[in-house]
Amino acid sequence: MSASTLQGVGVSPGRAAGPIMRVRDRLPEPAAEPAPADREADAARIRPAAQAVAQRLRDRAAGATGQARAVLEMTAAMVTDPALLDNAEKAVLKRGLPAPRAVFEAADEFAALLTATGGYLAERAQDVRDVRDRLVAELTGTTPPGVPELTRPSVLVARDLAPADTADLDPTLVLALVTEEGGPTSHTAILARALGIPAVVAARGVLATAAAGARVDGGAGVVELLDHAVEPQAAARSRARWDGTGATADGHRVRLLANIGSAADAQAGIEAGAEGAGLFRTEFCFLDAATEPDVEAQRESYAAVLRPFAGRPVVVRTLDAGADKPIPFLGVDGEPNPALGVRGLRIAFDRPELLDRQLAAIVAAASDTGAQVSVMAPMVATAGEAAWFAERARAAGVERVGVMVETPAAALCADQVLAAVDFVSIGTNDLAQYTTAADRMIGALATLNDPWQPALLRLVAGLGRAGRESGKPVGVCGEAAADPLLAGVLAGLGVTSLSMTAAALAAVGASLAEHPLADWQAAAQQALSAPGPAQARQRAAAVLGG
Amino acid sequence: MSASTLQGVGVSPGRAAGPIMRVRDRLPEPAAEPAPADREADAARIRPAAQAVAQRLRDRAAGATGQARAVLEMTAAMVTDPALLDNAEKAVLKRGLPAPRAVFEAADEFAALLTATGGYLAERAQDVRDVRDRLVAELTGTTPPGVPELTRPSVLVARDLAPADTADLDPTLVLALVTEEGGPTSHTAILARALGIPAVVAARGVLATAAAGARVDGGAGVVELLDHAVEPQAAARSRARWDGTGATADGHRVRLLANIGSAADAQAGIEAGAEGAGLFRTEFCFLDAATEPDVEAQRESYAAVLRPFAGRPVVVRTLDAGADKPIPFLGVDGEPNPALGVRGLRIAFDRPELLDRQLAAIVAAASDTGAQVSVMAPMVATAGEAAWFAERARAAGVERVGVMVETPAAALCADQVLAAVDFVSIGTNDLAQYTTAADRMIGALATLNDPWQPALLRLVAGLGRAGRESGKPVGVCGEAAADPLLAGVLAGLGVTSLSMTAAALAAVGASLAEHPLADWQAAAQQALSAPGPAQARQRAAAVLGG
Repeated sequence: MSASTLQGVGVSPGRAAGPIMRVRDRLPEPAAEPAPADREADAARIRPAAQAVAQRLRDRAAGATGQARAVLEMTAAMVTDPALLDNAEKAVLKRGLPAPRAVFEAADEFAALLTATGGYLAERAQDVRDVRDRLVAELTGTTPPGVPELTRPSVLVARDLAPADTADLDPTLVLALVTEEGGPTSHTAILARALGIPAVVAARGVLATAAAGARVDGGAGVVELLDHAVEPQAAARSRARWDGTGATADGHRVRLLANIGSAADAQAGIEAGAEGAGLFRTEFCFLDAATEPDVEAQRESYAAVLRPFAGRPVVVRTLDAGADKPIPFLGVDGEPNPALGVRGLRIAFDRPELLDRQLAAIVAAASDTGAQVSVMAPMVATAGEAAWFAERARAAGVERVGVMVETPAAALCADQVLAAVDFVSIGTNDLAQYTTAADRMIGALATLNDPWQPALLRLVAGLGRAGRESGKPVGVCGEAAADPLLAGVLAGLGVTSLSMTAAALAAVGASLAEHPLADWQAAAQQALSAPGPAQARQRAAAVLGG
Repeated sequence: MSASTLQGVGVSPGRAAGPIMRVRDRLPEPAAEPAPADREADAARIRPAAQAVAQRLRDRAAGATGQARAVLEMTAAMVTDPALLDNAEKAVLKRGLPAPRAVFEAADEFAALLTATGGYLAERAQDVRDVRDRLVAELTGTTPPGVPELTRPSVLVARDLAPADTADLDPTLVLALVTEEGGPTSHTAILARALGIPAVVAARGVLATAAAGARVDGGAGVVELLDHAVEPQAAARSRARWDGTGATADGHRVRLLANIGSAADAQAGIEAGAEGAGLFRTEFCFLDAATEPDVEAQRESYAAVLRPFAGRPVVVRTLDAGADKPIPFLGVDGEPNPALGVRGLRIAFDRPELLDRQLAAIVAAASDTGAQVSVMAPMVATAGEAAWFAERARAAGVERVGVMVETPAAALCADQVLAAVDFVSIGTNDLAQYTTAADRMIGALATLNDPWQPALLRLVAGLGRAGRESGKPVGVCGEAAADPLLAGVLAGLGVTSLSMTAAALAAVGASLAEHPLADWQAAAQQALSAPGPAQARQRAAAVLGG
């Protein structure tokens, strides 16, 4: 047997083997010439093509449910985005580009703008390129990129996966996912964990291989390439069912909550059994606004998202904007390192009235809907900042005030920060990138952003201790909470609630209920002393007999 | 008495009061027209003007010593930089710009390039603008910007100070420094600490005031503005003399070392009494290179810097390059957040042969010069990375191997990192910016980069503990080591050596010798539990009776 082995980043544990099925990669760039003989006629092809692509996506949406449905509907809406289609038509009419090229350039311009933000909007650039390729394929009569129709259980190999690629994937036919790019918080990683499929990301070289089969270890991040076909061997999936209450096997309660940013998210969270929402992102209300929305407009927007959670707890995060997540009317940009710049609560120090108006709108929306609303601030570094925020929030009528812990400083001074507020919520994605000083958008640094990094777990352990000593809750609302094994380890470190994408709730709930708290604590202790993230996961799994 | 008060960042402690003397700010932009009647003649004015400015700087250099002399000579060299003068002449000849405007644009272009790097080269942009203004003033026959001739003791107020402004400042006439911009690691801050002058930076609004006098508290960062003149009250300067041995009052040894990056720095370090060099930056060897310098060329460059330290310890840091400190032939750029990108040791993971050649050159230069050379790697985040580096360095013949601790992750896993190497050295400037997630180049975030932040001190305390438990040295080579009060607190936290700019050695040595270790330890404990940096400094000073 001839074999070669690639080392990537394991993002969803389990072992599986099977024949490789390749996801069709991006289309080649369409040619910029010859110019169409009839520009008007060529431009007129664009909207019908967009409608056709959107209709197919909506047909798939009709056959899907929950999260998958939302993703497909969102993609359909992006395909028919009037600004995108306008720009493409103009490029045909005014510059004489052929329609496929015009669509390509219009979409790329938009994707480049998103990428340049360097922040979480940059993750959306991949979605725009996916939409672009579907439209170009429709206009040129070629096969669109994406996941081929699977006819037998396979190991899927891709550059990276877009939400629309995977929304209606048949998980019974996917043995494992392996991607060339991506990181622990990429869509591929989140999806794989939600479905319980072994997955390795950042497996550099996997696209270039001609191997026929692969053995994948999603815990160790190892992909063994095989020249010959291999019998499909699916990972043993967790068959445990979740009863809807977040608790360890011995009944230690850990509230399982949903991350939400829209009314559709809120509905999906309720359907998936969330006890509440641990992170309500309010940026949606500001992203497209030319000027600041007034208090009444904000109140209505927030109320629409809060309504499904009437009678349940929801933690609303105040505006998390900055050069990495630009909000047009704020005019913050041009920083050399946006992730280390004036973002989150730092914006409010110079413009407290912006914060005050948002707080007033949140308090009013809570009263409109009956949701049990707490409010927290993003990007807090010191106890002084936390106290400043708490004072303003309480003055606005917020009863329960907290802060995100995304900076190492806030975690290191957890005792002081918790003295100033009622609770904290750990944003593991940002906390990881600051702790290892590794941009989470750079694939080459993905291992440093692995939430199993012992340095990150040690910060969480310190926060858990400070929470116990102060008697105040310590939640996690980063994607680490969506990893079924890590979720239990976080509980073992003293975390009292876990908030995640709705799709992950059932798998996390089932995993948490498999072991008593003492076992999770023992697993956590092993992970803390491991030399690296892969070993941390292995040692934790070993303690639990996994 | 009518008074108003500004809150800035205290960067050098002590209280003083006196009349305000303003440093002349930047010149207005010279006009782009009319075009000179005789382009050749106008272009021909540029070089003589540059020679005249350079000569005056060299005259000042001749009357100065040590660091001041080096700064003035470097500025003189920048004024006559052939590339700068060539570009300015071309702008007159080809574009018809008047000579002052041509110089202005040529210098600004260079400064903008430096600023765009976003890293430590960006700090040099201010120096280029200083050179630009001196040249423009010479060409237009106006008074150059800078510090006016002082005739009585004064509080100097400036936007920020360039090295050439302050190199031959008479410290007996400067009661305090207050700047509108700048941070704790700016030139102004470093200079003030070295001279023992109270200083406040980032005092927003101070330039706009018409006040005649000021009271300055360089510890608390408070500037009280007075409408009337005030009798000069100088801070009580430390009169303690340093005997050349780094130790507390009870003889606990803390080695005092110099940060160096050139043969001139090395000479200045020796003259200032450094026991060795705690940080030898090797970037100078690569910054202007079009291709990688070969092992022999590197060996000669390093030997020239090491030679003054024959028989003494020198810690050589391997290349610390990346998108924030671009080295042309490496071709690393375009990262969204260069400070969180592929920099320092991370470059070597993909190009180990580059590291191997540098290690070979360092080992050869050590043998050529008789300096006791250790080698350390920059930008290490995990024990695994430290072990990888140690293995390569030992294979190259390095006997004593260490790593910089600049990421919170390396500090949090200090036990694991120290198990892999012989020593660590804390880079407080970068460690501060990652701990609070606050770019140290952004003035508005200067407080978060204050090395007295309790979160930073807690990381240092953990490193000190890990050092004691492993019996391995823990040094500091960031600018925190140059603050006489903080230096003792760091020793109290378990730091075993302090490396700094040569100018700060005497003040730090004298301060360290004022109190026994137990007092420094007590001061450190108070600082650790303080709610913020200003209180940390105050509490530490209170313990010491200061």
